[in-house]
Amino acid sequence: MAKSSFEYVKKYERDDALLPNTWIVIRLDGKCFHKFSDDHNFTKPNDLRALKLMNYAAYTVMKEFNDLIIGFGQSDEYSFIFKKETSLYKRRAEKLLTTINSKFSSSYVFYWNKFFEEETLKYPPTFDGRIVLYPSEENLVDYLKWRQADVHINNLYNTTFWTLVLKGKLSPAQAEKRLCGTVSADKNEILFQEFNINYNEELEIFKRGTILLRKNLVENNTSKNVIVDVHDDMLKEKFWKEHSKILSVKPSKLNLEYTGKYTEIIREQLNCIK
Amino acid sequence: MAKSSFEYVKKYERDDALLPNTWIVIRLDGKCFHKFSDDHNFTKPNDLRALKLMNYAAYTVMKEFNDLIIGFGQSDEYSFIFKKETSLYKRRAEKLLTTINSKFSSSYVFYWNKFFEEETLKYPPTFDGRIVLYPSEENLVDYLKWRQADVHINNLYNTTFWTLVLKGKLSPAQAEKRLCGTVSADKNEILFQEFNINYNEELEIFKRGTILLRKNLVENNTSKNVIVDVHDDMLKEKFWKEHSKILSVKPSKLNLEYTGKYTEIIREQLNCIK
Amino acid sequence: MAKSSFEYVKKYERDDALLPNTWIVIRLDGKCFHKFSDDHNFTKPNDLRALKLMNYAAYTVMKEFNDLIIGFGQSDEYSFIFKKETSLYKRRAEKLLTTINSKFSSSYVFYWNKFFEEETLKYPPTFDGRIVLYPSEENLVDYLKWRQADVHINNLYNTTFWTLVLKGKLSPAQAEKRLCGTVSADKNEILFQEFNINYNEELEIFKRGTILLRKNLVENNTSKNVIVDVHDDMLKEKFWKEHSKILSVKPSKLNLEYTGKYTEIIREQLNCIK
Amino acid sequence: MAKSSFEYVKKYERDDALLPNTWIVIRLDGKCFHKFSDDHNFTKPNDLRALKLMNYAAYTVMKEFNDLIIGFGQSDEYSFIFKKETSLYKRRAEKLLTTINSKFSSSYVFYWNKFFEEETLKYPPTFDGRIVLYPSEENLVDYLKWRQADVHINNLYNTTFWTLVLKGKLSPAQAEKRLCGTVSADKNEILFQEFNINYNEELEIFKRGTILLRKNLVENNTSKNVIVDVHDDMLKEKFWKEHSKILSVKPSKLNLEYTGKYTEIIREQLNCIK
Repeated sequence: MAKSSFEYVKKYERDDALLPNTWIVIRLDGKCFHKFSDDHNFTKPNDLRALKLMNYAAYTVMKEFNDLIIGFGQSDEYSFIFKKETSLYKRRAEKLLTTINSKFSSSYVFYWNKFFEEETLKYPPTFDGRIVLYPSEENLVDYLKWRQADVHINNLYNTTFWTLVLKGKLSPAQAEKRLCGTVSADKNEILFQEFNINYNEELEIFKRGTILLRKNLVENNTSKNVIVDVHDDMLKEKFWKEHSKILSVKPSKLNLEYTGKYTEIIREQLNCIK
Repeated sequence: MAKSSFEYVKKYERDDALLPNTWIVIRLDGKCFHKFSDDHNFTKPNDLRALKLMNYAAYTVMKEFNDLIIGFGQSDEYSFIFKKETSLYKRRAEKLLTTINSKFSSSYVFYWNKFFEEETLKYPPTFDGRIVLYPSEENLVDYLKWRQADVHINNLYNTTFWTLVLKGKLSPAQAEKRLCGTVSADKNEILFQEFNINYNEELEIFKRGTILLRKNLVENNTSKNVIVDVHDDMLKEKFWKEHSKILSVKPSKLNLEYTGKYTEIIREQLNCIK
Repeated sequence: MAKSSFEYVKKYERDDALLPNTWIVIRLDGKCFHKFSDDHNFTKPNDLRALKLMNYAAYTVMKEFNDLIIGFGQSDEYSFIFKKETSLYKRRAEKLLTTINSKFSSSYVFYWNKFFEEETLKYPPTFDGRIVLYPSEENLVDYLKWRQADVHINNLYNTTFWTLVLKGKLSPAQAEKRLCGTVSADKNEILFQEFNINYNEELEIFKRGTILLRKNLVENNTSKNVIVDVHDDMLKEKFWKEHSKILSVKPSKLNLEYTGKYTEIIREQLNCIK
Repeated sequence: MAKSSFEYVKKYERDDALLPNTWIVIRLDGKCFHKFSDDHNFTKPNDLRALKLMNYAAYTVMKEFNDLIIGFGQSDEYSFIFKKETSLYKRRAEKLLTTINSKFSSSYVFYWNKFFEEETLKYPPTFDGRIVLYPSEENLVDYLKWRQADVHINNLYNTTFWTLVLKGKLSPAQAEKRLCGTVSADKNEILFQEFNINYNEELEIFKRGTILLRKNLVENNTSKNVIVDVHDDMLKEKFWKEHSKILSVKPSKLNLEYTGKYTEIIREQLNCIK
């Protein structure tokens, strides 16, 4: 049983350490979630329970990995940003990618019942993941803008499509045809003129997705470091002016005060800390 | 909201297609499972429920990915072997690695209660994963022998260690000291002389881990293709003589008859097929 | 002058060791050699001096790197095959690629006058290079067949094209048009019927390129290990039957007897040995 | 002669495009140049002919590749920096590395006689090469400082060593022992006290290596873009203040005036332009 004569196979493992001094972005994406959302009766065009579960799984990941400075989620995808200097797992790509992917996947199942009280999880879901490196702050900001612009485009389309189907009684094919070639203004108009829906009043979590950030919350003269879930507009420069420190200051020294509302995720952390 | 001005960030994604005509091995490994097994009161040195859950999660993965021809698991790790010619996801490393890792992780949580009836899962577990390529059959066989030799070495040690602690009333430190420098024969002797335990009679799943294979099972004159969970000795040439086809014949044309006992995993498939 | 405060930049170098147990193929290719051959009055369609210089530069490379077992050249390209087990430079891709590329390039200039007596080298030429891994013997043999089939196709075309231009007095555009859509048989026919040229009688170095191999040459009862330059047909199985050992036997133990003619390259080695 | 049945081997080539928006550094290094310099009677500790040949080969490379913005050479090594945005050869690593390595190697041989009039080149030299990526300007500047600090350290050592050997009549072993444990000040002292040599008065090309830059030279009211060879001190911030534009402005729009002396390399370009 000489293990040593086989151990040479370990030499076939490759070194996959990522280039230092670059932003490591990990993006997870639900596999076959069109079918998954049908199988689990997700509300169309957005299911608030499903989005909250995604956020909670992502929050679980952020809690575990202190070097993650930003999370951004929408629909069935979530992006995680490591601080530029992270040396977690010696920046080994496979290790970083799989631990985050695994923690997210197992959390999604583990916390299902917390959000889907009456809907049973029928089978284990799958998320794929990828790593992308961004050398500059500008690249990273553009990445986040790209993902958030994507939410807007998809959500306006989906909101109009499903309104046409559910309230307008069009078939999916008819709704698709109706929307073919329309621009944003056209869709806003359809919603407002025909269904009296003001798209601007839709929930921000639907229109902008969710950003997870580390901030300080002052309560009873005590400052607490918490992960907050917000729906700010990253396409506006205002956001980056207020949050530029996130990209340049060490997470441990970051001192961004949070004055927004207490979400479930925030309340849970305050309860834990007390 | 011009998405296009940010879309250039997509070009930072790298192509990671794996070399064709090589064996793709994906190995998953539990993260901090020493603590996890304590937190969930795993029986020492082996917890049958935990091993069966690992096997079931791996079986769920094998069911989903037809190009997987072998699975091998022990303790908190599992290896999956793709057929050499697989073109799944164009052999993209990240995609292959994360989908398998994610499916396994979510299945582990999803099926927890099936095996741990009275033990509640306290938090979502994490598995990391890696990909290794092996160019030749000899390399691949040596890889599997390496992992199975590892089971033997670890299990003999753990069995003796925990017998010294649980039955011999040694402290863990004392047991460790006692075993320091001993070879296999010494440990067998300790077990037999002092505790009347014949190591050879330990469960095969403990001594050899579990191999998942695709075989044909003939029942009522009907041949059914099933995934079987066996505990054969891959260190013996006999196994490779009987299973050489697995490495050279297309899974769809593979015709290996199974005549072993009906395990729970096999029975479940027969019930599904009926 | 604290060098150490800058030395961190060394950590940005990546490990690029190639997968073990695979055939490493390095292929060099002349950059802008169409212009280079015009600038140096190469004979069309083939310039024997230029081909011999390529062979000699490749021979210089083979002499330097004992782990190279085969070289194959045609036109302005040369392929070098390392033995499968080579651990030269720890199989680091950049190191292997650049040393071979550099030695070839500098040799091409260094030996120019040996072959182009009356034609002065006007400027330093450039060769690019790439590394490809092949996991199996079949892959490697197919690679060499691919390159040699390429010689045949190109040379038959070029021979007919330049015959039409030089002897048939067609313009290049007319010759191109004439050959458009023709198959091999058509080109053979044009050469034979219109110009009384039997393509089969063309020089083998033109039709098949040059293979560099290590063989034993017995002279005066003494066996000498030499690099031989031959023009065998690798598309025929006969070649691989006779040379199968090259791929499976260690170069140092290889014992392939050479009984062909004494080329300049061979004679030079015999003179050196004496 | 169906080429197509072998063409599948092309699919084994891997995509090696480098991460965008990073500084690409290519460093070449002479292979076995200790022996090479002995074989060609290089003057110790520095051979001006050899350094000028290195510079000229590098200048030939810079002339050919417009996207190269800086070259830095010392002893038998040369570094080339591409502008950050280069898309030359789609940023394919092997292609960039080998064309530069090849052009440099062939130029070294081609221009040998221009600098070594009475010393015949005995055999073709070899240079290896590597690619390193640097994400930030700070990294890149530190890389260049690292290489230049290396010149200082090596040259002070070598100058003292060879003075002890050539003028002090010590054996190489004695000189080595004498220098063991000495710091810079000690070596300066030895040179000055024992041999009346002021190290500061050594040639700048010896003390600092050579930097190749693109600058504008105004002559007769005409501005000409030339590659200049200078020996500035990159370890001083003054250099980077004067040359910061090199890293941030497109080479084509760069407008750095040159007012230094007319070197051979510069004169040659002026003659060509006229």
